Amino acid sequence: MKTVTTIKELKQIIKNHKKENRTIGFVPTMGYLHEGHLSLMKKAREENDLLVVSIFVNPLQFGENEDFDSYPRNLERDAILTKEEGADYLFAPSADEMYPHEPSISMKAVKRTNVLCGKSRPGHFDGVAAVLTKLFHLVQPDRAYFGMKDAQQVAVISGLIEDFHFPVELVPVETVREPDGLAKSSRNVYLLKEEREQAPELYKALNEGAGLLASGHSPEHAADFVKKRIEDRTTGEIDYVEVYSYPDLQPLQEAKGTIILAAAVKFSKARLIDNITLQL
Amino acid sequence: MKTVTTIKELKQIIKNHKKENRTIGFVPTMGYLHEGHLSLMKKAREENDLLVVSIFVNPLQFGENEDFDSYPRNLERDAILTKEEGADYLFAPSADEMYPHEPSISMKAVKRTNVLCGKSRPGHFDGVAAVLTKLFHLVQPDRAYFGMKDAQQVAVISGLIEDFHFPVELVPVETVREPDGLAKSSRNVYLLKEEREQAPELYKALNEGAGLLASGHSPEHAADFVKKRIEDRTTGEIDYVEVYSYPDLQPLQEAKGTIILAAAVKFSKARLIDNITLQL
Repeated sequence: MKTVTTIKELKQIIKNHKKENRTIGFVPTMGYLHEGHLSLMKKAREENDLLVVSIFVNPLQFGENEDFDSYPRNLERDAILTKEEGADYLFAPSADEMYPHEPSISMKAVKRTNVLCGKSRPGHFDGVAAVLTKLFHLVQPDRAYFGMKDAQQVAVISGLIEDFHFPVELVPVETVREPDGLAKSSRNVYLLKEEREQAPELYKALNEGAGLLASGHSPEHAADFVKKRIEDRTTGEIDYVEVYSYPDLQPLQEAKGTIILAAAVKFSKARLIDNITLQL
Repeated sequence: MKTVTTIKELKQIIKNHKKENRTIGFVPTMGYLHEGHLSLMKKAREENDLLVVSIFVNPLQFGENEDFDSYPRNLERDAILTKEEGADYLFAPSADEMYPHEPSISMKAVKRTNVLCGKSRPGHFDGVAAVLTKLFHLVQPDRAYFGMKDAQQVAVISGLIEDFHFPVELVPVETVREPDGLAKSSRNVYLLKEEREQAPELYKALNEGAGLLASGHSPEHAADFVKKRIEDRTTGEIDYVEVYSYPDLQPLQEAKGTIILAAAVKFSKARLIDNITLQL
């Protein structure tokens, strides 16, 4: 595996491989890798000739009061893990390399963003769209892999790819969980000991809510039920528990079609998100 | 030459050629072709294995009170001309094909746009950026050709390509002119007979202005001179005569480096633009 930090070098590498018609699988990450990321890499490794992983904590997708500075980083360990997964290239540019000056063109995600995490993170998905547009052009992947834990991100990216006809296939990958059900996340390390013990209640509550939806209860009832469960069983503060159509993220009177039940809960130093999508 | 109207067919065609490593030259146009367009095609034809031309009057780049409806169209004639230039494919999609629904992501051109034509056409370059992002992804050209008559467009597109690292080389091509100096334009057909006779004064005045700049006169003086010349010699109403650095389009106290002297003049049914770039 080769670690690449400059755009110039990456471009040359990709150009050479494209000439040879090698298929490229791409896993864009913000690093501090966990098994969720590794599952994306495994799948990408299986399905493509080349595996390119990027690690870039993208300042553009963090709000002013968010955790950009404290977002966990460990490039050395990440490089070892990435190599173990059989990646061919690890692209790890600096912020200056990716954003050498104020952009000429800005992107605004106008659909699928005013709900769930998008509501409390204005501009977040604009930053995601901009950095992925750059990365897709640099890496020129045939397939790009994203975890369904960030289901809204997958919905926004699928809109980005469809709207602008990026020649890349989006591959959503199921959330990887701890044995107790907690979704793997780079932010889990910031849970206090007692919060870590409570955290699996989030997924349990979502599962119970999904059961209600599947048995014909209304989205409103299911969401209320999940809220109460989380409030009763954790010290976390609920940011949202919501049900929408997926991937359009439209409100629903009744649970029909492909839907998502999603929750975000704030603990003292970590905000956790999780979701279940189901086909009814 | 094959005319293609659907995205699906175009994607398949491009995919097959990419596999064979053929280089693709791309000339995106709004049709009603004139020798300016043909000069882009000639150059693209020379420099690439394949020549793809698109004809699409992009609604997104016209303002509400602009000439989208009356913009001249003649696909039949355009197809003949395109074929004569040796194009392999003519992509001529409908508006519904290009914009099947409200976009999920919008683009905003934030630099190089608040001057020249951008000033009086708010949103124009946002629409240009969006449609070219789509077209670049669909056609996947190695090189894309644009005429320098629309110098601000070239500046904005160069920002778009650089910012987002599109794997495409922008090739600016010199303005093609009538024997009397008038820049070729699809809108020239809307000049009244006497306006057509006056129209070459625009380029003459710009040339005189460029001479002043080259001999050390200030940008302000040169612009004023050009304005007066056009006012004296035509019935047109001046929209702007301005001098900027190029391609950054920043105001200049003195004429140094690569600069552009540009003008826009409104006649009764046509607004003409022209410019001269010079290296001082």
